[in-house]
Amino acid sequence: MSEQNDPLVVFTPSGKRGNFPVGTPILTAARQLGVDLDSVCGGRGICSRCQITPSYGEFSKHGVTVEPDAISEWNSVEERYKSKRGMIDGRRLGCQATVQGNVVIDVPPESQVHKQVVRKRAEARDIIMDPTTKLFYVEVEQPDMHEPSGDLERLITALRADWDLPELEADFSILSTLQASLRKGEWKVTCAVHLGDDVVSPRVVHVWPGYYEGSIYGMAVDLGSTTIAAHLCDLQTGEVVASSGIMNPQIRFGEDLMSRVSYSMMNAGGDVEMTNAVRNGMNALFVQIAAEAEIDPSLIMDAVFVCNPVMHHLFLGIDPFELGQAPFALATSDAIATFATNLGITNIHPASRVYLLPCIAGHVGADAAAVALSESPNTSEDLVLVVDVGTNAEILLGNKHKVLACSSPTGPAFEGAQISSGQRAAPGAIERVEFDPVTKEPRFRVIGSDIWSDEEGFDVAILSSGITGICGSGIIEMVAEMRMAGIVDGPGLIGNPEQTGTERCFLDGRTYSYLVHDGTATGGPKITVTNRDIREIQMAKAALYSGARLLMDKFEIDNVDRIVLAGAFGAHISPKHAMVLGMIPDCQLDKVTSAGNAAGTGARIALLNRAARKDIEQVVKEIHKIETAIEPRFQEHFVNASAIPNSAEKFPILETHVTLPNVNFNTGGSGEGGGRRKRRRG
Amino acid sequence: MSEQNDPLVVFTPSGKRGNFPVGTPILTAARQLGVDLDSVCGGRGICSRCQITPSYGEFSKHGVTVEPDAISEWNSVEERYKSKRGMIDGRRLGCQATVQGNVVIDVPPESQVHKQVVRKRAEARDIIMDPTTKLFYVEVEQPDMHEPSGDLERLITALRADWDLPELEADFSILSTLQASLRKGEWKVTCAVHLGDDVVSPRVVHVWPGYYEGSIYGMAVDLGSTTIAAHLCDLQTGEVVASSGIMNPQIRFGEDLMSRVSYSMMNAGGDVEMTNAVRNGMNALFVQIAAEAEIDPSLIMDAVFVCNPVMHHLFLGIDPFELGQAPFALATSDAIATFATNLGITNIHPASRVYLLPCIAGHVGADAAAVALSESPNTSEDLVLVVDVGTNAEILLGNKHKVLACSSPTGPAFEGAQISSGQRAAPGAIERVEFDPVTKEPRFRVIGSDIWSDEEGFDVAILSSGITGICGSGIIEMVAEMRMAGIVDGPGLIGNPEQTGTERCFLDGRTYSYLVHDGTATGGPKITVTNRDIREIQMAKAALYSGARLLMDKFEIDNVDRIVLAGAFGAHISPKHAMVLGMIPDCQLDKVTSAGNAAGTGARIALLNRAARKDIEQVVKEIHKIETAIEPRFQEHFVNASAIPNSAEKFPILETHVTLPNVNFNTGGSGEGGGRRKRRRG
Repeated sequence: MSEQNDPLVVFTPSGKRGNFPVGTPILTAARQLGVDLDSVCGGRGICSRCQITPSYGEFSKHGVTVEPDAISEWNSVEERYKSKRGMIDGRRLGCQATVQGNVVIDVPPESQVHKQVVRKRAEARDIIMDPTTKLFYVEVEQPDMHEPSGDLERLITALRADWDLPELEADFSILSTLQASLRKGEWKVTCAVHLGDDVVSPRVVHVWPGYYEGSIYGMAVDLGSTTIAAHLCDLQTGEVVASSGIMNPQIRFGEDLMSRVSYSMMNAGGDVEMTNAVRNGMNALFVQIAAEAEIDPSLIMDAVFVCNPVMHHLFLGIDPFELGQAPFALATSDAIATFATNLGITNIHPASRVYLLPCIAGHVGADAAAVALSESPNTSEDLVLVVDVGTNAEILLGNKHKVLACSSPTGPAFEGAQISSGQRAAPGAIERVEFDPVTKEPRFRVIGSDIWSDEEGFDVAILSSGITGICGSGIIEMVAEMRMAGIVDGPGLIGNPEQTGTERCFLDGRTYSYLVHDGTATGGPKITVTNRDIREIQMAKAALYSGARLLMDKFEIDNVDRIVLAGAFGAHISPKHAMVLGMIPDCQLDKVTSAGNAAGTGARIALLNRAARKDIEQVVKEIHKIETAIEPRFQEHFVNASAIPNSAEKFPILETHVTLPNVNFNTGGSGEGGGRRKRRRG
Repeated sequence: MSEQNDPLVVFTPSGKRGNFPVGTPILTAARQLGVDLDSVCGGRGICSRCQITPSYGEFSKHGVTVEPDAISEWNSVEERYKSKRGMIDGRRLGCQATVQGNVVIDVPPESQVHKQVVRKRAEARDIIMDPTTKLFYVEVEQPDMHEPSGDLERLITALRADWDLPELEADFSILSTLQASLRKGEWKVTCAVHLGDDVVSPRVVHVWPGYYEGSIYGMAVDLGSTTIAAHLCDLQTGEVVASSGIMNPQIRFGEDLMSRVSYSMMNAGGDVEMTNAVRNGMNALFVQIAAEAEIDPSLIMDAVFVCNPVMHHLFLGIDPFELGQAPFALATSDAIATFATNLGITNIHPASRVYLLPCIAGHVGADAAAVALSESPNTSEDLVLVVDVGTNAEILLGNKHKVLACSSPTGPAFEGAQISSGQRAAPGAIERVEFDPVTKEPRFRVIGSDIWSDEEGFDVAILSSGITGICGSGIIEMVAEMRMAGIVDGPGLIGNPEQTGTERCFLDGRTYSYLVHDGTATGGPKITVTNRDIREIQMAKAALYSGARLLMDKFEIDNVDRIVLAGAFGAHISPKHAMVLGMIPDCQLDKVTSAGNAAGTGARIALLNRAARKDIEQVVKEIHKIETAIEPRFQEHFVNASAIPNSAEKFPILETHVTLPNVNFNTGGSGEGGGRRKRRRG
């Protein structure tokens, strides 16, 4: 910035402005004003990341008129770049174009360092790019025998001088190839610099000879009890370049968390077996995703993991023993930053760090923290209930003044497990159900087809998959629809054909079952809903509801302002049916939204924005945890919540097909009995 | 500290004093006054490291009279400790004994945290204990379901509260056993805490259940081209508990540095072979020393290495290629702090850090830095020349105003290599020689015996070893004595029997050799000094002298105030003979001292005192490096230095047996020729 009568440079959208002498490169002006304009090569016309768009004409808002010659002429560096790589018309390279008169310069989003990665849902906050590891191009002084110094020390001097970086160290892994890279690049190199975390100092983690054209990557991993899902993200653009998932290989040691804790308690070295299993799976997954994205896995330089406490401990190599008994003590609750190699992840960059989000409590893990990071209940004006539905449900309730958290052992029923015709969400699984209120005949849709079962073309559409079972969201709709059609009563019993008016109900042992679809004629399965299935769903939904209700008690409220359903499964739940079932507390239907895989999104935010890590670490400290296992009211709520309510009264806005009949098929005892007895037996 | 009329407590030797209420434990008073009084258990009467000695009577110096009842009575904790472990009479435990009246309290050296480790030689500075890793005993809060937090986080809270430690992290390696240790110790544990370095934050590196009675250890390693010597030090007391050495396994790739650089240049993967060789050797050495000291190698929690640049690079896994050619660029010159595992050292504690001292230049390594740390030329009032004699000589010259450094390629002659009857310093090697000035008969002593060869009992004394050869210091004395006896002339030729007056001179090819000892009658070797041997010694001493002389030129001086000979070999050199030979420049004989293995001592200082690491890193930055390879005057000095001077004139204080005869046995050409021609050939 110089004299008042030097040309005025105004940057949009920031509005930052200043006077600069004629001949000042736009990039230099941007830097001096603190305008967020990217550059990897430091203004050498190599990286082209500093593209800007000069605007011409009169700008009354800025009080400036821009003449056509306010910017230096298109030069050979820009011409070379445009002819080789292409550049949008009207764009200039900020390091080449210089100020010649008053100018208005627009910085397009992709030229911003802290560009936003736009998420699909408008209501969630976007991710501002601020990754742990960044690329910097530098020119290094050659060695001088008379002033001896190490090649590394001259590299660091150059990085600090050109890029205003903090005190830098070198990761050990760069030493063996540093000298060759410097000479191959003729003393010009591109460095990946990890900007440090709680444990390690900022340090150079990779050196490429010359200007490195490629990118560097990070992995955001949602390590679930059942599945491991990972997103490979470009650490420069924030883009998800590949996603993939595998079954958690620990499945063979037990379907749910407590069975894995038991496995470790009953088998010497069982925890080590499970740790090895998940780490091997993780390595395989990383290699698979890198192959899919056609990148070298060693370009993966950061990874963020979210998981529940048992997965967290097993992944870290900690016996989850203590998590299986009161007081459910975590070995460590704070966020973990360590080397990937410490977690047995050996296929990615040798200097790669990993980050695990903090755990909230012994039953409320880093996955819940990730949901909190993604959904930010702590900044909400209204009171929001966030439910991450999985084998274990994590529940957050709060607003900007206070956030409460608990977890609830819903079991795997919501994922289609322990349901007689249940299956995982895959082609062939019934996912949507509607009952005809008069005929009580069901119609349904299966995954892989948009055609309902009573519509033309259905048989053809499902030819390849068949009709194989009912997935988690399907069973919820099924039971809710059965309740609404009067086939299931409030306490959860399926009536006989006489009571229900449909021959699909048949005696199946001591209770009745309901035939959804008989595929035996074409070699397919007979798909039924048994009374035991209804009980499983009642148990699961009661657990979920009771957890939410417990938090509402602590807030001393009976209604929440809005509900966010998270989890891969939450994305598919029909809010209407969830409310018919009484899975979630009363709320206006249009205030129930799905956040998709919010835990995975939280992982991605922490991967791409290191400030977000500090944020969530602080937020987690302020979340108040409720341990359901020792809350007497949890049991009480659970018992009361096992019945399936008469929704027509409770949810007037619900467009139910019929008013629920107030039937009760139980032949003895109270309506709550089923759930209660089952609980005692379980 | 409290009221003026509270009892006065005076600590000696610090002289710190203050008033404390009756009942204050002495340890508490010491802490409040900042008196250096040790404690691992934090005043719980467990560790007994806070032992003090109360003094009684009148102390006019301190203006206080101490009554017999000025200290609380001997208590049961002290009695239990004394009966179990023993305690010097008059000693008390500082955490148990309380102030009852005016007292004078002596803190014995072993009760000081920053105790001094006294080195054998009085002139060198002692090491003040300030290791990287220390032990702390703590009592940890138990988990509370209502306020969930990780066991680790409660441990860290306790450590910080009790011990005033900085922000602490946990090393990854403690996580898997932390919960079991806390419960086994009933929430009382002893922690080893690494206090951090440039790269990693302070962090807990080990947790023992209860009070850990043992110690923790560090390794100070002098990684030489020929031998690797290591000292295992107790990180609490500073004591060297075991020392051992092995041959550098890289020997098989080449005897000297340049032959190893060549090996790496001529053989693809040769550098990796050599890296693996030295790392494997290091692991074996560490295990061997731990076994000797009867400690678990996993108690080794820190290691410091000093070495020349080629060893430094090969140990770090860096191809030494660049060190073999101008401009002799180091990959990295700064000190290195990294995990031991990164250097393939896997037998010690998994969280162990290692530290390599900084290199000064491409030919002046971390070993020279260690010598500088040990001998501190940078704080010297007088001008000191420090010479570390080995295969490569490192030379430092300076005082508190300025320090210069260079290295000089002396070759292995000073270690007995490339000498016809040369051998390493081992029993049977001739190490001391004297010639009878009249008969020209030699008498000598061999390693392993104090009896001279012409004294009674010699034959018996050497029965087990025999007389096997001449070691490095022996060959120096031998050549110097031969010169003084007139058997060798100034230019370095051995005369014939007629010229020398002894039949021990015999024609051996085109020149004469000298028979030192004929052991063939008893099956031993014939030990001779050939004219080629003399040439080798001339070359080596000329290289050494020239380096020193070059630094003196830079200082524009012709004399130094004192000379320190370092290196395992330097410890055995006779200064008189070194000066007769002209190895070292003119200096008063009583100003020539030996520093022993100064590089190893420097390593030990850096191991035991982490502040010393920062010191030497700064000192090295300020040392001015001279590259002998490109200094024209080095060649000039070298040529001039190859002759063996007429010492009788130059060193009048020398108690030589005779005045050196000014003989010259050369039959043609100049006296300097031999050295010069050899150099060209080499």
